[in-house]
Amino acid sequence: MANLTLFHNISSLLTMSGAAKKGARFVVQDDLGIIGKAAILVRGGEILWVGREAKLPKGLVPRGAKLKKIDLGGRTVLPAFTECHTHLVFAGNRHDEFEMRMRGASYQEIAEKGGGIVATVKATRAASLKDLVATAQVRAEKFVRQGVTTIESKSGYGLRTKDEMKILEAAGKVKGPRMVRTYLGPHAIPTEYKGRAAEYIEKIVRTDLPLLHKNGFACRVDIFVEKGYFELNLARTYLSRAKEMGFDLAVHAEQLSHSGGAQLAVELGARSAEHLIEITEKDVRALAASEVSCVLLPAADMYLQCNYPPARALIDAGARVTLATDFNPGSSPTQSLSLVGVLARLEMKMSLAEVLAAYTIGSAHALGLEQKLGSVEPGKLADLAVFESDWTELFYSVGDQNAHSVWREGKPLFI
Amino acid sequence: MANLTLFHNISSLLTMSGAAKKGARFVVQDDLGIIGKAAILVRGGEILWVGREAKLPKGLVPRGAKLKKIDLGGRTVLPAFTECHTHLVFAGNRHDEFEMRMRGASYQEIAEKGGGIVATVKATRAASLKDLVATAQVRAEKFVRQGVTTIESKSGYGLRTKDEMKILEAAGKVKGPRMVRTYLGPHAIPTEYKGRAAEYIEKIVRTDLPLLHKNGFACRVDIFVEKGYFELNLARTYLSRAKEMGFDLAVHAEQLSHSGGAQLAVELGARSAEHLIEITEKDVRALAASEVSCVLLPAADMYLQCNYPPARALIDAGARVTLATDFNPGSSPTQSLSLVGVLARLEMKMSLAEVLAAYTIGSAHALGLEQKLGSVEPGKLADLAVFESDWTELFYSVGDQNAHSVWREGKPLFI
Repeated sequence: MANLTLFHNISSLLTMSGAAKKGARFVVQDDLGIIGKAAILVRGGEILWVGREAKLPKGLVPRGAKLKKIDLGGRTVLPAFTECHTHLVFAGNRHDEFEMRMRGASYQEIAEKGGGIVATVKATRAASLKDLVATAQVRAEKFVRQGVTTIESKSGYGLRTKDEMKILEAAGKVKGPRMVRTYLGPHAIPTEYKGRAAEYIEKIVRTDLPLLHKNGFACRVDIFVEKGYFELNLARTYLSRAKEMGFDLAVHAEQLSHSGGAQLAVELGARSAEHLIEITEKDVRALAASEVSCVLLPAADMYLQCNYPPARALIDAGARVTLATDFNPGSSPTQSLSLVGVLARLEMKMSLAEVLAAYTIGSAHALGLEQKLGSVEPGKLADLAVFESDWTELFYSVGDQNAHSVWREGKPLFI
Repeated sequence: MANLTLFHNISSLLTMSGAAKKGARFVVQDDLGIIGKAAILVRGGEILWVGREAKLPKGLVPRGAKLKKIDLGGRTVLPAFTECHTHLVFAGNRHDEFEMRMRGASYQEIAEKGGGIVATVKATRAASLKDLVATAQVRAEKFVRQGVTTIESKSGYGLRTKDEMKILEAAGKVKGPRMVRTYLGPHAIPTEYKGRAAEYIEKIVRTDLPLLHKNGFACRVDIFVEKGYFELNLARTYLSRAKEMGFDLAVHAEQLSHSGGAQLAVELGARSAEHLIEITEKDVRALAASEVSCVLLPAADMYLQCNYPPARALIDAGARVTLATDFNPGSSPTQSLSLVGVLARLEMKMSLAEVLAAYTIGSAHALGLEQKLGSVEPGKLADLAVFESDWTELFYSVGDQNAHSVWREGKPLFI
């Protein structure tokens, strides 16, 4: 008989049950499914029962069963957060470039001086697997302390087979949180393929995707659809072939200009479309009518000083909106979930309930993990974030939102 | 003979000597006074010598003297930061109001529902001295962990003698950092004096200021100069009387509209003018020609979604520009120095050197402590912030800038 664990003495448990039922669309405060004086019964990492502590059915704990009780001290509990868009594994940093940009240098000028993504690719290619794991581990732990148990991690700073694989392998070696790895070979056109984007796509479809099938480093692929990077026709080729091979799809779409990436995501049944700053009304309707998760990344928008995506239009039309940091060394050098949530509230007029749903059941959907994560309900994994403060104080104070403790499948990740 | 301490094995020491010499005006990178492989000799909390470790003059350590060596492990050292504008002591919180504001409620509507500053005043009046000290202590430690050893703390949520004094007394009981207390009785017109601002000013000048002389709770006073709060003529009365009584002056000026507060600060020789969003070109020239420190508070501007002050115009004209969080439960519920610095860089186009000078020698000037703090030079106090990262990585990643260790007068505040 598997051991039972009872998480109890919870002043306020946000189950997110209503939001989960709605598939993370049209979320209002009632959908947070708040239970006062709550308890959670867990067996083998899975939630068995959730409710008011006083109403725990006695029959659930068989006589003689080993029951471990974990007293959460009257704190607040939420489903652990899922951080569904990061570039966690890279070497070097690009703070000098930030200063250059603030002095008015264009991306082009920075690139000519060896900066930009090329700088990160150079440093990452030169780094050992061991070093990449070590830095990624530190970064992953920063997410965990904020209540995150699942982290998506993209490749894309290798831009050649062995280094793309090295990045994905490194992400797989991070201990603690659940790592969801995404292949992003078409993040930029590698210097070696300058002016030959189609050849690069052909090459990675022929070599990298089959290799991923063999080594199991990623079952998801992503692409940056944008003028000067990978245009729509190439993206369609790449994503269609990946879909045929059984990969889940994500698309960096409409970040700097309107390229048709969002509609392509809908057309191909992608899990997610990300950024979505330059979307049209037609895109909004198409996304809302689809199963695509709209991953909005306001910290990157703040750092790049571009527009924020039309979150309200998407949410009001019924789209599934989620949030993430987009943590990367160039356009979003921050891991602060609180910054993302505060910007979502201030700049995109999302309600707190919408932000909480976005970072739990919404981002679980974006990674295809909504059956296992994103709400605290029987049958789901016991991934829990425990906070000292009341839930109404979350995503309010930038830079100050560490959890009291974080649990993955009923076991402590951070206390 | 006082004990000697040698802080050594410093990869990079930012002395800020050039910025200090210039009075924190026209700061460029050379003014950071960077010394590689440095050491700092301290006697009785005061800096005795600063230089390259290999060049420590032997004569400074007399034979037989007790020399304690502190190995800083090849890290980066800066003068500890001074956080020169906070409302650290208050009870309650106002996160519900944030949600109301995002839904489009005006300040007026929020005030009618018992929100706004009135809500904080109510909670703070009801709080005990002990509780105020306890919450302020936690907040102060959050600043310390970021490299801060000196914190300005304003009253202003009591709005009647006993509670204004309670707030200042509480700030004085905070342990660890150096607390600089500012009386801000004219923060808002108390309900009891509605429509009678002049009477309130007359009353506090007659009762509170003399009391402060007696109890020593504050030697600085501040006022919120703004339409509907305290207009220019009342501010002049209050500040002039306070000046006659020997208080240092600070002025909340030109935050929501142009009220003449900045010019008044210049006219009366105030230490600082704060916010300065709605300043004119004439104000810029007057401030630049004066000794007034211009305290800019971009986190509040972000939360209030108003304009940012014209930092570049002030800096380029030669004004002394400093930065602070404005931490308070209403308009700036964040203690993140990194957020402030990143906003200064992104939104106000300040260089990293300017941000570093602002948070060290600049903010020391704002509090009249420039003789003792703000640079690492012989004769100054050994208030040091030690960082794991290179200085070029500071004020770059929002929410992630805790110091490795923080030292006040040569003794550890946080390790």
